[in-house]
Amino acid sequence: MKLPQVFERYRAEVDTELRSALADRVLPMYDMMRYHLGWQDERGQSLPGSGGKALRPTTCLLACEIVGGEYRRALPAAAAMELVHNFSLIHDDIQDGDSERRHRPTVWSVWGKPQAINAGTAMRIVASLVLLRLGKHAISADKQLDAQRLLDESCLEMIEGQYLDISFENRLDITTEDYLRMIDKKTAALISCSFELGALLGTDDKLVMERFRCLGRNLGLAFQIRDDILGIWGDEALTGKPRGSDIRHRKKSFPVVYLLERVEGEVKRKLASIYEKEFIEADDLETVWGNLESVDALLQSQQVAEKYCEQALGELERLPLSPPARRDLEEMAFFLVRRDS
Amino acid sequence: MKLPQVFERYRAEVDTELRSALADRVLPMYDMMRYHLGWQDERGQSLPGSGGKALRPTTCLLACEIVGGEYRRALPAAAAMELVHNFSLIHDDIQDGDSERRHRPTVWSVWGKPQAINAGTAMRIVASLVLLRLGKHAISADKQLDAQRLLDESCLEMIEGQYLDISFENRLDITTEDYLRMIDKKTAALISCSFELGALLGTDDKLVMERFRCLGRNLGLAFQIRDDILGIWGDEALTGKPRGSDIRHRKKSFPVVYLLERVEGEVKRKLASIYEKEFIEADDLETVWGNLESVDALLQSQQVAEKYCEQALGELERLPLSPPARRDLEEMAFFLVRRDS
Repeated sequence: MKLPQVFERYRAEVDTELRSALADRVLPMYDMMRYHLGWQDERGQSLPGSGGKALRPTTCLLACEIVGGEYRRALPAAAAMELVHNFSLIHDDIQDGDSERRHRPTVWSVWGKPQAINAGTAMRIVASLVLLRLGKHAISADKQLDAQRLLDESCLEMIEGQYLDISFENRLDITTEDYLRMIDKKTAALISCSFELGALLGTDDKLVMERFRCLGRNLGLAFQIRDDILGIWGDEALTGKPRGSDIRHRKKSFPVVYLLERVEGEVKRKLASIYEKEFIEADDLETVWGNLESVDALLQSQQVAEKYCEQALGELERLPLSPPARRDLEEMAFFLVRRDS
Repeated sequence: MKLPQVFERYRAEVDTELRSALADRVLPMYDMMRYHLGWQDERGQSLPGSGGKALRPTTCLLACEIVGGEYRRALPAAAAMELVHNFSLIHDDIQDGDSERRHRPTVWSVWGKPQAINAGTAMRIVASLVLLRLGKHAISADKQLDAQRLLDESCLEMIEGQYLDISFENRLDITTEDYLRMIDKKTAALISCSFELGALLGTDDKLVMERFRCLGRNLGLAFQIRDDILGIWGDEALTGKPRGSDIRHRKKSFPVVYLLERVEGEVKRKLASIYEKEFIEADDLETVWGNLESVDALLQSQQVAEKYCEQALGELERLPLSPPARRDLEEMAFFLVRRDS
């Protein structure tokens, strides 16, 4: 499935804003950030090409434009969103002990965990400093403070989600409801923030901001559940993660929580014993896959993701959108819920 | 040496502001913060008494009052400074692998490193959110943005200092100059920020703010060098750290860097072999103490600390201070550079 055109629209300008945010920072700690963002290799040599989808900057700028704002004025906010997302990835990799991300060694596996903690926390602060550039784009001081508060509250919620996710690791009694509450914080809060921040910078209409916030929440949930599906059944060549990666990492993602809710007795005990192991073997992987298939977990999970996608699109009905704006948002939503990478 | 009276003046109000910053936060992650701040035990039971000196809130409120401001309006800034300082302690303990602080298990040693990373980063964000309360104290939006920028820039500098400190760990060629540049970031940046933030909230006079910034820088350096002295020669009963603690942790604090600059040949090789060990034994400790004594490192270090203290007090000459204000600042400065805990 191809990345919709809207993801290309702002890419160059977001990249410029992001690079300028780190341009004057010379301490090697900032090379760790440039490495993580895919701009440099371990020795500081430039790399061609860009990073990922830049979902959060794109949603931020698109929301700003759709509500009638000049999207360039929101570039500092778009860059801040990408930095907050990437700070969370640097810390996630430390917390999960993951040594690879997108076919490259993670920051901590190159520079060690203590320095990776510093690089992550520092990147979070660079995000706040970039957001303070909004003043140069004639955004009022009051609106800048609203933007800071929104970013901080959302980021705090994201960390709460990460806290819950880790606290779920050694539990087998998580319900799909618990799980949805967790990803609502861990993933949806920041995606929702991107939409709302864009809207805030493009309009003064509180109701419109509220619509974009809800749109982002629902799309964030759909996005994460699709991510969970790809973590179990995704194609390594496309996702950059080995097939069954989330099972190997004993992640209790949506399909697994769905499965655990539906099994009992011997099957549940067997699954519990697998999820207690330090290393998951090839035949454990087959067992989990087989059990997931027996409850139709892929299709059921996808249906939940599609439901949230529909709810997101439902929010659009309540907004006066131009046909191209509607098409962009629909294309983005369908991509997020059906992508295979 | 007794804590000067000025440290008691604002204590109750700072405590109230800090507690209210966390009051509505119910996730167990916030109990980790309350534990770290000394308000609760591991199981969430309230503890009597307060935490440490609260140096940063005190300097912030004192600066605000001295320049003619109403210190209560700066309470959110004072609380934010204390939270930023404590976030850095939570992460420092993870990075250094320290399992005790002030005779209590550190956050990571109770809840594990992944969750302690979350609690630390989240506390940093709570600090920004508390600072946004300045609006309720009739601080203008522009001044609030100045305060946010000052806090973010100082905090980033603090993390740069922490990065440098860790990068010095495996090096024996650090000069006292390198070391002073490092603590200027790691310690002095935040203490300077406290003074400047207080001044910013109490006056519009940029020159006065600049004086307080310089005062804070110099006092921060004096404070850290005194801290280094206590880490080697301090009395366990007073400091809460075992005697020689910094040597056991192979910390290259000021006296050790001073020593390494002054030895050569066999003595340097012997010291190098000690600082490469994983565990430092009792007779290694005696060797290092002996070498430190041979270059008069305690007195020499104290003289450098006193020099910075004098420079700090020199800044006072250029400010129109009332006699009580001067006395408070002088008492504080002498305490910081001569304290034994």
